[in-house]
Amino acid sequence: MDQSDLKAAPAWQLSERAIKLTSSAIREILKVTERPEVISFAGGLPAPASFPAEEMRAAADRILRDNPTGALQYSATEGYLPLREWVAERYSVGGAKIRASQVLITTGSQQALDLLGKVLVSPGSPVLVETPTYLGALQSFSLYEPNYVQMPTDDLGLVPEGLTPELTAGARLLYAIPNFQNPTGRRLPLERRQALARFAQSAPFPVVEDDPYGALDYAGQPLPTLLSMAPEHIVHLGSFSKVLAPGLRVGYIIAPEDLHFKLVQAKQATDLHTPSFTQRIVHEVVKDGFLDTHIPKVRALYRDQCAAMLDALARNMPEGVSWNRPEGGMFVWVTLPEGIDTMKLLEQAVAQNVAFVPGAPFFASEPQHNKLRLSFVTVSPAKIEEGVATLAKLIRARI
Amino acid sequence: MDQSDLKAAPAWQLSERAIKLTSSAIREILKVTERPEVISFAGGLPAPASFPAEEMRAAADRILRDNPTGALQYSATEGYLPLREWVAERYSVGGAKIRASQVLITTGSQQALDLLGKVLVSPGSPVLVETPTYLGALQSFSLYEPNYVQMPTDDLGLVPEGLTPELTAGARLLYAIPNFQNPTGRRLPLERRQALARFAQSAPFPVVEDDPYGALDYAGQPLPTLLSMAPEHIVHLGSFSKVLAPGLRVGYIIAPEDLHFKLVQAKQATDLHTPSFTQRIVHEVVKDGFLDTHIPKVRALYRDQCAAMLDALARNMPEGVSWNRPEGGMFVWVTLPEGIDTMKLLEQAVAQNVAFVPGAPFFASEPQHNKLRLSFVTVSPAKIEEGVATLAKLIRARI
Repeated sequence: MDQSDLKAAPAWQLSERAIKLTSSAIREILKVTERPEVISFAGGLPAPASFPAEEMRAAADRILRDNPTGALQYSATEGYLPLREWVAERYSVGGAKIRASQVLITTGSQQALDLLGKVLVSPGSPVLVETPTYLGALQSFSLYEPNYVQMPTDDLGLVPEGLTPELTAGARLLYAIPNFQNPTGRRLPLERRQALARFAQSAPFPVVEDDPYGALDYAGQPLPTLLSMAPEHIVHLGSFSKVLAPGLRVGYIIAPEDLHFKLVQAKQATDLHTPSFTQRIVHEVVKDGFLDTHIPKVRALYRDQCAAMLDALARNMPEGVSWNRPEGGMFVWVTLPEGIDTMKLLEQAVAQNVAFVPGAPFFASEPQHNKLRLSFVTVSPAKIEEGVATLAKLIRARI
Repeated sequence: MDQSDLKAAPAWQLSERAIKLTSSAIREILKVTERPEVISFAGGLPAPASFPAEEMRAAADRILRDNPTGALQYSATEGYLPLREWVAERYSVGGAKIRASQVLITTGSQQALDLLGKVLVSPGSPVLVETPTYLGALQSFSLYEPNYVQMPTDDLGLVPEGLTPELTAGARLLYAIPNFQNPTGRRLPLERRQALARFAQSAPFPVVEDDPYGALDYAGQPLPTLLSMAPEHIVHLGSFSKVLAPGLRVGYIIAPEDLHFKLVQAKQATDLHTPSFTQRIVHEVVKDGFLDTHIPKVRALYRDQCAAMLDALARNMPEGVSWNRPEGGMFVWVTLPEGIDTMKLLEQAVAQNVAFVPGAPFFASEPQHNKLRLSFVTVSPAKIEEGVATLAKLIRARI
């Protein structure tokens, strides 16, 4: 680059938050895994076989025939009212009564995280997160420059007794994924849910329950949500990405009206509203009970894929490698012997056309380097076996 | 509300930026204008008659039949590559060569504003805006707590000679709408564009050219964009909202690669990507030259609507009321005699079922209270006459 080029491309001053921004390791890995020869356990992508494309096509056609203006014009920031009502009714189970006035439709669940950061987090605010937690949530909240506080966890997930006054002092929110957590695949047991709901009832900040995977429990026996236990004290995030299709980018936040109102104001400034058309497609597909027959099919598919992964791990992994047995969701969390750095392992694996996500980026601080996340839903059982065998060989060589 | 209710609804602490958030006056007005009996000159909504619903229906059908996975799966944060390439080619006119690597697809143009705020603005950063300017931009940037600096304008728009070193010191961005500005309807003359482009070439911050209305010049004789004059120094925002349909929420940012890369990182944390499906619909509709026949129809429609508004104003308004004669776009900017507060006028007008937007909220500071914005594209000529006559009567009573 010569002088005139330097002059032509000025280095504009960026905001402090932008200077700290870094691209996710997942993102860089995904670029490699676009090569068709790579067996990728890295993606958090749902299986395309589960997308109800024909139902979507029929829905899109009906909507643009019957009410094109509704689908193509600007619409309310809160979202499409019939969809908000559908969400409210679906969550009004047990003793909980959820109102449509609590529901804000978001451009995917990721936007819900951005809006919560906007509305709750000031620079330096303590934000309580699981150890480890969803990398995308860390990226999203980080734009608002929080001070992350890691909460104690064990093999069952978050340990509610660890939420001491010292640890939680001044927090602006607590972020948890009780169902089939990303990255660990863990499901929080009922007693811990009850304890966390009790904690939420007296906490001076919201407990955020992020639940993209809740419908994907293999046995079809969901545990109650935190929302159902303490409806006025929980902010619940849901999504159609894992039960319908992520490419539509339709999710939602259920929050008490006070916070809901602020989230709506923030969303108005952020993207005015989620596309009218995609919201209507989702509503048109789900309104007559489609998910009641569709979700069991997705569950069965994911259960079989998970079984293939667990079998492959048991057959191939050497002594000293351990993993959990997910009861739902898309991920297995693998622990290697201390001293094996999964970031370095990844480089070797990619050279042999196998990809996964190293565990370290999922920790807000004090990363553990001997962990990795395996996603199993988009890979055929034969390729799962092949990919796990390759990984096992690489690990054996390092023990 | 009794004690137990107060206990049940905790007042969670919000971020400083959220505390400052207020709902837009436009938003509150739009609620009133949903009543069918109201003649609304308030909305910035494009005319539904211009939405190519049948083309969209055919496009949606083809996409979900031929490549449902592409439309329904997660996709790249940067956007759908063929659409990015289409945008780059469309802007590569005259001497300018725009690269697809400069184009980021956004969830409407509003998201472009949010991303620019995220990446460029720190609390207290000076941000240069027109006097008045687009209210939605003020709302969007405000979340990042800038210090607004109003630039001098006259009846032709922004006055480039007013951009003195004193005024622009330390600015993080300059925000301008050269074509048929919201709210004034003004188009910046060629010589001022040239002066502004020269300014951009030596400024240590980006000049942001927001251009949602550029295609809507009634005579079909667009003036060159700032982007075409200084392609490496301008950040250009575009949108399909006004030329196709806003409900799809598809816009774009064209920026030098350095800034583009930061904007992509910010967008990843904000909503991962704009819906794959709506991006593909837009591309499918525009790729074979559809806009070349469609835009002239929208122009003709809006030109006729504007003429009806100008005629009605000339017929009805008393001495002392003035307005501009837009050469394109959706808005007329009206100046009333000093001392008439258009916010109070609005209350009276709404009581008589006529709505508009008062001018005050469009000023970053020192609001002018005797201005108002009239949008004419969604109201029939007969209703334009009726609504303007009602307004004129109210104004006459106050002179």
